[in-house]
Amino acid sequence: MTTSSAHCSVGANAHFHENSRNFPSKLESASVNFHSNGEFLKISLKPSSGSSIYSKNNNQIINWLKAWGYVGRVCSLPEIGDVFPEKPLTPILDTIETPMHLKNLSHKEMKQLADDIRSELLFIMNKTQKSVKGSMSVVELTIAIHRVFSAPMDKILWDVGEQVSSNIKDHKVRCFYEDRYSMTYAHKMLTGRRSLMHTLRQKDGISGYTSRSESEFDAFGAGHGCNSISAGLGMAIARDIKGKRDRIVAVISNESTMTGQLYEAMSNAGYLDSDMVVILNDSRQSLHPKLEESPKTPINALSSTLSKLQSSKLFRKWREVAKGLTKRIGKGMYEWAAKVDEYARGMIGPLGSTLFEELGLYYIGPVDGHNLEDLICVLNQVASLDSTGPVLVHVITKEDKIVQNDNPIRTSIKYKEDPYEAGPQPSNPSQTYSDRLAEALTMEAQIDKDIMVVHAGMGIEPSLKLFQEKFPERFFDVGMAEQHAVTFSAGLSCGGLKPFCIIPSTFLQRAYDQVVHDVDRQKIPVRFVIPSAGLVGSDGPTNCGGFDITFMSCLPNMIVMAPSDEVELANMVATASSIDDRPVCFRYPRGAIVKSNAPLIHGVPIEIGKGRVIVEGKDIAILGYGAMVQNCLRAHSLLSQLGIEVTVADARFCKPLDIKLVRQLCENHAFLITVEEGVIGGFGSHVAQFITLDGKLDGSIKWRPIVLPDNYIEHASPMEQLALAGLTGHHIAATALSLLGRTREALLLMC
Amino acid sequence: MTTSSAHCSVGANAHFHENSRNFPSKLESASVNFHSNGEFLKISLKPSSGSSIYSKNNNQIINWLKAWGYVGRVCSLPEIGDVFPEKPLTPILDTIETPMHLKNLSHKEMKQLADDIRSELLFIMNKTQKSVKGSMSVVELTIAIHRVFSAPMDKILWDVGEQVSSNIKDHKVRCFYEDRYSMTYAHKMLTGRRSLMHTLRQKDGISGYTSRSESEFDAFGAGHGCNSISAGLGMAIARDIKGKRDRIVAVISNESTMTGQLYEAMSNAGYLDSDMVVILNDSRQSLHPKLEESPKTPINALSSTLSKLQSSKLFRKWREVAKGLTKRIGKGMYEWAAKVDEYARGMIGPLGSTLFEELGLYYIGPVDGHNLEDLICVLNQVASLDSTGPVLVHVITKEDKIVQNDNPIRTSIKYKEDPYEAGPQPSNPSQTYSDRLAEALTMEAQIDKDIMVVHAGMGIEPSLKLFQEKFPERFFDVGMAEQHAVTFSAGLSCGGLKPFCIIPSTFLQRAYDQVVHDVDRQKIPVRFVIPSAGLVGSDGPTNCGGFDITFMSCLPNMIVMAPSDEVELANMVATASSIDDRPVCFRYPRGAIVKSNAPLIHGVPIEIGKGRVIVEGKDIAILGYGAMVQNCLRAHSLLSQLGIEVTVADARFCKPLDIKLVRQLCENHAFLITVEEGVIGGFGSHVAQFITLDGKLDGSIKWRPIVLPDNYIEHASPMEQLALAGLTGHHIAATALSLLGRTREALLLMC
Repeated sequence: MTTSSAHCSVGANAHFHENSRNFPSKLESASVNFHSNGEFLKISLKPSSGSSIYSKNNNQIINWLKAWGYVGRVCSLPEIGDVFPEKPLTPILDTIETPMHLKNLSHKEMKQLADDIRSELLFIMNKTQKSVKGSMSVVELTIAIHRVFSAPMDKILWDVGEQVSSNIKDHKVRCFYEDRYSMTYAHKMLTGRRSLMHTLRQKDGISGYTSRSESEFDAFGAGHGCNSISAGLGMAIARDIKGKRDRIVAVISNESTMTGQLYEAMSNAGYLDSDMVVILNDSRQSLHPKLEESPKTPINALSSTLSKLQSSKLFRKWREVAKGLTKRIGKGMYEWAAKVDEYARGMIGPLGSTLFEELGLYYIGPVDGHNLEDLICVLNQVASLDSTGPVLVHVITKEDKIVQNDNPIRTSIKYKEDPYEAGPQPSNPSQTYSDRLAEALTMEAQIDKDIMVVHAGMGIEPSLKLFQEKFPERFFDVGMAEQHAVTFSAGLSCGGLKPFCIIPSTFLQRAYDQVVHDVDRQKIPVRFVIPSAGLVGSDGPTNCGGFDITFMSCLPNMIVMAPSDEVELANMVATASSIDDRPVCFRYPRGAIVKSNAPLIHGVPIEIGKGRVIVEGKDIAILGYGAMVQNCLRAHSLLSQLGIEVTVADARFCKPLDIKLVRQLCENHAFLITVEEGVIGGFGSHVAQFITLDGKLDGSIKWRPIVLPDNYIEHASPMEQLALAGLTGHHIAATALSLLGRTREALLLMC
Repeated sequence: MTTSSAHCSVGANAHFHENSRNFPSKLESASVNFHSNGEFLKISLKPSSGSSIYSKNNNQIINWLKAWGYVGRVCSLPEIGDVFPEKPLTPILDTIETPMHLKNLSHKEMKQLADDIRSELLFIMNKTQKSVKGSMSVVELTIAIHRVFSAPMDKILWDVGEQVSSNIKDHKVRCFYEDRYSMTYAHKMLTGRRSLMHTLRQKDGISGYTSRSESEFDAFGAGHGCNSISAGLGMAIARDIKGKRDRIVAVISNESTMTGQLYEAMSNAGYLDSDMVVILNDSRQSLHPKLEESPKTPINALSSTLSKLQSSKLFRKWREVAKGLTKRIGKGMYEWAAKVDEYARGMIGPLGSTLFEELGLYYIGPVDGHNLEDLICVLNQVASLDSTGPVLVHVITKEDKIVQNDNPIRTSIKYKEDPYEAGPQPSNPSQTYSDRLAEALTMEAQIDKDIMVVHAGMGIEPSLKLFQEKFPERFFDVGMAEQHAVTFSAGLSCGGLKPFCIIPSTFLQRAYDQVVHDVDRQKIPVRFVIPSAGLVGSDGPTNCGGFDITFMSCLPNMIVMAPSDEVELANMVATASSIDDRPVCFRYPRGAIVKSNAPLIHGVPIEIGKGRVIVEGKDIAILGYGAMVQNCLRAHSLLSQLGIEVTVADARFCKPLDIKLVRQLCENHAFLITVEEGVIGGFGSHVAQFITLDGKLDGSIKWRPIVLPDNYIEHASPMEQLALAGLTGHHIAATALSLLGRTREALLLMC
């Protein structure tokens, strides 16, 4: 099923229109498109003029949809200022249902296909409000790969590409953008998922990354980046052992060339010398960083090597190359030889062999990533020859590359992200926990000149630019090099500074050994700031930050805490700054702060291991950890209405636990519920271990832990994910009611 | 106090002798040396001939020692074939108390010092039975570094070096040797710890690695390897910010050049361009691997680059180099310039710039690591100049380098390791869990051709050579590249093979994200084998495998199990092989199997999630996990003597838990003790969460978890460590007695 067939007319005030250049004449007109099985629903609202900017209150639309019975299934509503172009014509794309159909296209048709894909990507992505930068840059490359190779028999491994944090601030987005973005949208469109593109990263929709469970064309799952060469090499070896002949292609981005795993993998690939193709999609994000703007952009020395390589034409040694090439590529150099030869020359410049050559990969490039003929020619050559060992094809792409012809759609590109819907909607949507962290850190740094920020990730989270601009010499962005970031922070600390090492929960997993071995064991005061802790909405299970409480709180020297709101966040920044004899960490979720109108005040250090009681009751005690305290308070409200008196306490510390507080809760209540947005083995387990050793669990109190369930929660809105996880205020209240034996009310609450 | 003063005569049959070349004339003669505070005791037994080989049964000696009252303090007994040289004369070494004393030595004296250090290292290490290979190779380098730089003001960071597994099998050693060894012994001897060298890696003795808590000369703690450049760069940046002028020297080994973190760190060092010196100690272990012997030795492509670099004399471009060098090093090239220039030329060979140059480090080398004059000259030059940015000095050393002059001691080099003393002593000391794993895997692989082994680490664990020799094409040793190893295994699995990925517990931490993201989330059947789980004896806290149960069992798709003995180990190999729809892991400890005379039988797959009751009782239930089941059985014996009937169950699975078994234990007993050699958040927490949600913890059973304590346990014998951790049979029995209210008996038991 294609997108076009998924358009339907719904209700009296909406009318069907497809491929129409005429906007509906009335403001009340709505284009409603939903999946033919009725599961996905999008509405586009059109004003009377052609520029299509909607400017009325959404409530009216919601009322219509309620009347039509669709409200429960609305995925997203348009924002004021959104632009809704009409669906463009895509004559060639409409003929492609599987990659096989690419094989017979002429070069001209393929160029048209690239345009078609870009137009449709813009159209779909604008509607689903996702960024397409990464995928836009590789449209030709995707076509060339699927033209030359035969997926799914040949295995294409798409690594993770671009990051689009830079222009997010303009769009009132309230998330922490450390995402590693996808290059796969064109690949998904060409491999049978075109009709599902509007469900990207939504509940029950398709993933933003490749996913083995989603399609046989996705050879390996991505999300964190830089795993594709390792996995591809494994597949290549398996192929050799099984005596098969399929080809392995790993597509990496230049962002990931600074990660350690990629180096380990290339090095091992060079040694094992099994045939595979690595394509480096170099969109030059870090080749030409604007140093004057951001002196510590995530660049490494390799980037400049790549850069120099490109400008080395004058030094190319023609003769040696031709010889070397013939020897390596073998005897199959017929009509395409000249073309390949031309590109292969890039490998010998004034620098001699490149990093890739030294690692044992045969280097070809740089190839113009938007020149389909060249791409296909080089890939054909690479694909047709056996026993070349691993080959690296260096492809230069432009991330702002859009449709070739003068299509007005390109003027309507808007990069937007799904808002974080959990919790109350703040009046100032730009205030997130991350914003507050950056502000609190900056305030703290103004009075303490030893405070440094070390950040690992693909791009600098926009909020942190506040700190970076204020203290450029005290801000270190090391790129996708989490392992280094942690030990580097330890070194700064040994040198007498106060590093705050900021790594999102899911990526901190990449540096776990460094946290254990280089920091905790040596009791070095590094302050770990862990954003994106817990569920992460549309980023889904790949980036879920569910494990950090468990893997951090088992470390002997680590102080582990979590703020329940933005005031506590500022306090914990101050607390972390004041702790100078051991490591400390604190986690906070994505999304909006609790009270957006609360003035930003300078944090006050909290006494270590000191929780607090927020509300006192007598029937049941709920002990929340981190942002979940807010949901405990929601449960309190719900239970109050049922006449149940609840104590809600904010643990603040998972380690050291406030044992006085926990004892007090056990002594004054018959029931204790612990609540955390983390997996088993974390906060609840620490409480349980303490109360059982203290004898409190020997019949004097009944304890129930609420933790993340034992499964990965697929991408959905944060609110939907929390509901799936059983972590909403309603779930907590229902657990309390069940404990009190009021099972029927518990059931009613969940209806 | 020096070692020599620690010699004492003990008992009638032993006599004092020091620096004597005459061996005792009778077989019964014993040289007993112990520390003057009586804590350390070593015996050397001499035959009547000069070649000093003992050939009688040790029992006789043990009987003497028992009579003398020393048996409890015997650290180790000599083996047949051991040679015990007398303490050599060390005239120059005796004059060195701090590195400052090196500054005035002549070159001739420094050469003698190198000989002195080697002789004493051999003497001490032979006695304490530690390997010295890594430290032997860097004696001259250590002297040169301390001569040129001024520690502790200048920061010297010693990374982790060699691994000596290759010749261990000859010496009946029963440990799993995945250790990353130390290059620091000479450094320790020169920095005030000479008199403590005989306490290396023993309880209350000094650590085998650098340790910040041990000495101000140890700038950063090592143990896992490849953290030194990251930490050093942090220190260099801190120095710059603080306006100080101390110098940072990181010494790495060629073994670690394949790790991702090192690459991340070098890359960032090249970019930040802060002054620091990286010294690559290249003992060529992987430069010239014997490919015919082991086709998959841990080599990467970089090694061959280094190798080619050395043989590139013919291609050196003299002119360019001289120019480039002057530009980089600056204007300080006076008398030493020619020498440095000579070495610096190495950077331009037929390959052009090296990997290091591409990463932004200025390369100098290769330098002969045993030529003190050259070393000091190059280091002096590097140290005396500012603003060079990061410099890499490539030093070639020989690991079998011993004393220069014709000293007969060198013929007596024996590399030995401390035996694992926990548990009953098997009659066949060579049978370890690792041996049995290798045998079970090999048996399994004979009937299933899809079974592959992927191993990450510095060297191949000797037991595994069995598998490697039998199936060289199915064995992949990727070197110190744990991240790659895990994802590579995932790739093999996607390709239809059955990879067993073998990574010791502490090093699996380095690949945690890959386990989560590339394997568990995608539910790819990779079988993780986790050796060295739990306490690891003399390797101490750096290599302690205490966290794996916690960080693996919180993963949704992972099956987590642990064998309680060698029969179960074989069964779990078979179980893991049969599970082909999700990932699985099992852990086992270092050291000897339970029943060494049990015949090796082919494993039988265990039903997933099925534990077993070993002994039934009615008073108390003890549920053990993994090897701790043996200690639970010891507790059972102790408690039986006191008339207490104990049920001992072997959980086998932490996940999925055998809920039927756990329910049964709760229903039939008033007390449940869970026992594991792991930290909080693991097996006990899973049991607690289940029984509380099942209502069993609401007064019907009292639960007590026994886990590793919340601190790092320093190096000691495994038995001592278990006692410190509170995990012996006595501790478990005492916990049971306390629960039963028999506190006095509990106290008596622990006396």
